[in-house]
Amino acid sequence: MIIEMAKRAKAASAELAKLSTEIKNRSLLSMANALEKNAEEILEANGRDMKAAEARGVKSALLDRLILTKSRIGKMAKCLREVAEFPDPIGQIVKTWTRPNGLVIGQLRVPLGVVGIIYESRPDVTSDASGICLKSGNAVILRGGSDAINSNMAIGRILEEAAVESGMPRGAIQVVSTTDRSAAQELMKMRGYVDVLIPRGGAGLIKTVLENAKMPVIETGTGNCHIYVEEDADLDRAVDIVINAKCQRPGTCNAAEKLLVSRNIARDFLPKVIARLLSEGVEVRGCSRTREIVHDVKPATEEDWYTEYLDLIIGVKVVDDLNEAIDHINKYGTKHSDAILTASFDRALRFIKEVDSAAVYWNASTRFTDGNQYGLGAEIGISTQKIHARGPMGVEHLTTIKYFILGSGHIRE
Amino acid sequence: MIIEMAKRAKAASAELAKLSTEIKNRSLLSMANALEKNAEEILEANGRDMKAAEARGVKSALLDRLILTKSRIGKMAKCLREVAEFPDPIGQIVKTWTRPNGLVIGQLRVPLGVVGIIYESRPDVTSDASGICLKSGNAVILRGGSDAINSNMAIGRILEEAAVESGMPRGAIQVVSTTDRSAAQELMKMRGYVDVLIPRGGAGLIKTVLENAKMPVIETGTGNCHIYVEEDADLDRAVDIVINAKCQRPGTCNAAEKLLVSRNIARDFLPKVIARLLSEGVEVRGCSRTREIVHDVKPATEEDWYTEYLDLIIGVKVVDDLNEAIDHINKYGTKHSDAILTASFDRALRFIKEVDSAAVYWNASTRFTDGNQYGLGAEIGISTQKIHARGPMGVEHLTTIKYFILGSGHIRE
Repeated sequence: MIIEMAKRAKAASAELAKLSTEIKNRSLLSMANALEKNAEEILEANGRDMKAAEARGVKSALLDRLILTKSRIGKMAKCLREVAEFPDPIGQIVKTWTRPNGLVIGQLRVPLGVVGIIYESRPDVTSDASGICLKSGNAVILRGGSDAINSNMAIGRILEEAAVESGMPRGAIQVVSTTDRSAAQELMKMRGYVDVLIPRGGAGLIKTVLENAKMPVIETGTGNCHIYVEEDADLDRAVDIVINAKCQRPGTCNAAEKLLVSRNIARDFLPKVIARLLSEGVEVRGCSRTREIVHDVKPATEEDWYTEYLDLIIGVKVVDDLNEAIDHINKYGTKHSDAILTASFDRALRFIKEVDSAAVYWNASTRFTDGNQYGLGAEIGISTQKIHARGPMGVEHLTTIKYFILGSGHIRE
Repeated sequence: MIIEMAKRAKAASAELAKLSTEIKNRSLLSMANALEKNAEEILEANGRDMKAAEARGVKSALLDRLILTKSRIGKMAKCLREVAEFPDPIGQIVKTWTRPNGLVIGQLRVPLGVVGIIYESRPDVTSDASGICLKSGNAVILRGGSDAINSNMAIGRILEEAAVESGMPRGAIQVVSTTDRSAAQELMKMRGYVDVLIPRGGAGLIKTVLENAKMPVIETGTGNCHIYVEEDADLDRAVDIVINAKCQRPGTCNAAEKLLVSRNIARDFLPKVIARLLSEGVEVRGCSRTREIVHDVKPATEEDWYTEYLDLIIGVKVVDDLNEAIDHINKYGTKHSDAILTASFDRALRFIKEVDSAAVYWNASTRFTDGNQYGLGAEIGISTQKIHARGPMGVEHLTTIKYFILGSGHIRE
């Protein structure tokens, strides 16, 4: 069954690559309208998913990723309309130049072809990814988690019908209708049909895809994000930033999972920040030095330093200095988003240069790592690997170039 | 043993990332001088490799890839000097912008980290790849073929000594000294140490790396390249281009392996071009329609259409029209370099848009697919995949960006 989907996607991708900007944009606007018009149907399907998840005792941070509301459907529609507004990258001549022998060499921007997305509970990914793939001229195969199967199927069907009516080739947006693991395994073997596979979800999912996929993979999203509070930081601001980064939406990959604090301010800062964290309902797990200062904190284990909680839990560690903070982040982090809070430009610059992460912050919350917040528009994921794309990936990251070379009988000497 | 090399490379990469442009360039110039000064030693080592290869009865096109001469060593030195002349991409601020909330967002160009290269007989890769990796701030682990082990070890040792004397950290250039397969297998498992693996060589090597590597791979170089001669082509020029693309250096990946000819000119063109090919010592394998026109041509099998010969052999097929040519290339080709010879802009444009290859030529030889020929400087390989880089890869393709975000206590609403 996956092979048939892959073949349909490949065939559609050849048509999509030639599609005019006008038809792509018209399809995106129809998709946005269709989501709003059919909101009740989507909410009904999502209600069934939520009920089943609650019955299984799923954690609240994960339920927050699964639930749809009228307002979230409105955001999905808004995202599609924004994607329609973007300039179309396809067909763009990136640059041309002429060689001394008269050969003209140019780069033409083209789609990747077929994009596979394997994701977990967030049903808004179905819509956002479809829009970004369509705009960039790629066919997409969406394999969501079993938690969200009803929501995803409803969204996928509504999007495809609306887009096909507006001129998009059928087969360009396909949602895998089964949730058993063999479908995902089969999708990972579709080298030659699927040009790139993007996993979105927790560490386990990403590891499985990296180990099994036969095509190029863009690693995304595991975020064991750190905030390091230097001795010269503004401590009131620091409390606000830590609370925002941890609590504003704890189920997302750019939420802070660890707090590192310079030992020179630990006695001042830790009681304040931990009191606020506890009052927000956060479970605090501390190193031994933290627990000497604030006694009612659970001990953190070695494993805690590696863990992305995606929940109202934070690990707190006292470090000697900037060097220890940088070393700790490079050892235990996931190369996603890490922040330093300091008044010193020199220290901030060292942190920015030496922390090996996709996004490095000075005096701001890690929660900003997001295509919309960066002004890149909708994103298809946040790359934590170094090749192809790093950080939030938008429309342009789903394209490539081809060289065209114009000669007049040129041969090589 | 590979794990120790990988750890040394990782440690060196942290130093390399901070190295000044001045020290990198000084090291590159020392490396170039050292190659020339020690040419006799390199030629002696290469002589042992050549002798062993001849004794094993290696094909002449492959011997051509293995042999070094004073002139080829001079070219390797020249390449290093050219790399020294390039602008240093590392530390470049690619762009910055300010968001409505005052957050400043920027992209900083940084090295990938550790690059692994697995390659076959060409010993000049040892030098070219070392130079490009050093300039881009990456440590490199070079695992060459057993054919060239003596040449590679000599070149690697000479380069490292010269560069370390000029300030490059030790461990930045390492040649794997054993040629058994387990070393390559171990290298492919060094995820976490090796950030990207680049295989350079034949189809078998590339397939092995794609199937076994645990880190991102950039697929390079298998070139089953086509020339399609349209009915309105200048036939005299076409003969010259075909001969150049096939014969000028048949062991390289951008050499033409297949000739497609419009049926409307087959009777005129095939006798001419095949006579020239035979007189150049090329073995011609034709489809049935080719053999009806030129009788003393061997039959081509289905497998021939998929094969990269890397030798003085060419497959010739008569096609009905441009559609069949495009379909044939997209089915049997390797997405490397393909050319159309035609007087028509419309036909050329369709070929350029619809042939899904890294480099698409109009009225020129496929032999131009090369970093130097494109004016990109030295190359580390020719990517035939779509993600990260496509076509000849130079210094900039061995870098990535990180986002830096400057706030003044910003939190997300």
